[in-house]
Amino acid sequence: MSRLRLRISMSLDGFVAGPNQSVENPLGIGGMRLHEWAFSLAEWRGMHGLEGGEVNASTQVVKESLENVGATIMGRNMFGGHPGPWSSSKPWNGWWGDNPPYHHPVFVLTHFAREPLVLEGGNTFTFVTDGIHSALEQARRAANGKDISLAGGAKAAQEYLVAGLVDEMEISMSPVLLGSGERLFDGVGDDLHGLELVRTLTGPGVTHLKFVR
Amino acid sequence: MSRLRLRISMSLDGFVAGPNQSVENPLGIGGMRLHEWAFSLAEWRGMHGLEGGEVNASTQVVKESLENVGATIMGRNMFGGHPGPWSSSKPWNGWWGDNPPYHHPVFVLTHFAREPLVLEGGNTFTFVTDGIHSALEQARRAANGKDISLAGGAKAAQEYLVAGLVDEMEISMSPVLLGSGERLFDGVGDDLHGLELVRTLTGPGVTHLKFVR
Repeated sequence: MSRLRLRISMSLDGFVAGPNQSVENPLGIGGMRLHEWAFSLAEWRGMHGLEGGEVNASTQVVKESLENVGATIMGRNMFGGHPGPWSSSKPWNGWWGDNPPYHHPVFVLTHFAREPLVLEGGNTFTFVTDGIHSALEQARRAANGKDISLAGGAKAAQEYLVAGLVDEMEISMSPVLLGSGERLFDGVGDDLHGLELVRTLTGPGVTHLKFVR
Repeated sequence: MSRLRLRISMSLDGFVAGPNQSVENPLGIGGMRLHEWAFSLAEWRGMHGLEGGEVNASTQVVKESLENVGATIMGRNMFGGHPGPWSSSKPWNGWWGDNPPYHHPVFVLTHFAREPLVLEGGNTFTFVTDGIHSALEQARRAANGKDISLAGGAKAAQEYLVAGLVDEMEISMSPVLLGSGERLFDGVGDDLHGLELVRTLTGPGVTHLKFVR
């Protein structure tokens, strides 16, 4: 059975994005601080077409997050762009340019219908307007036995956590405070639906907490 | 210079106590789940006059938290009892019986004046009504060169964190959700005032994150 796997960076005070997310500031004010541990990795830089970088304890976490993934689900905010209906004259096609780093089918949760978007490198974006169960079903079909990555943001993660559909969760906790923004566990309640901490890994500027059920 | 050291247990979603704290339920609903990692330790059990228990990676954290401490500061809620003015007919004397586990001077932040309380085993409780700076000054004098333990709860920790007065912070994170209650970092903003993650230790059911500045 293919598994739904959430990997997300969170601050010590529980935020996965800063306040005032925008096209100019996709992670919100201060949100980049959550990802600094990744930006220095050769593994991460390679994925984004950059050279150099280092190998450390976090490398394994990034590698694992890419292994055996056949599809990705993300929220509209993570796909980005303006809120509301999609513009037909100048459509937003994501943050990643012509060849995003997914290379498999991506399903975007949105309230606004849109034709699928096909980019280079095996990147297809399907816009799902009928909810998280439909997106998971479509992603599972597309993944063809492989796992499904739940890429965030906060709201998409919350909906799948509340529904008890997350099979694996790796939280990369940055030892910083954001003070405001989007909290990963807002409205999730007190039930992890069987997700148990199975591994703690520490790299420079980050502690990775892996939960499995 | 003696240092102010905060050690506190926090849930994955950032709570250090559950909702509805009361005399019957001092840690709030579900709050005991934050401390399960400690209850099984021989070190913790010994402190509270109990036999048995185990030794694991968390033992070191509990041992360290007791070393070189000459005074403790805590909030009124952590000292416990009813809210409002102290009852003179039936005063609340803490949760710990006649011989609390501190064995040094304790300073309780409160809005309501009260004569000092002297219990067995070197436990003296001084009630401080003129704020965190006064409490720290009195604790520092009493500690006589040793460090000062900041025992919580959330509000006391927040006030010292905002003021940038915490020299060391060890967060023992339990991999559970509480969903509601008292958040450690509520209102603290985005500034750790130089506190940097220097160590991550994992024991059964807990990840200890040590910050020093």
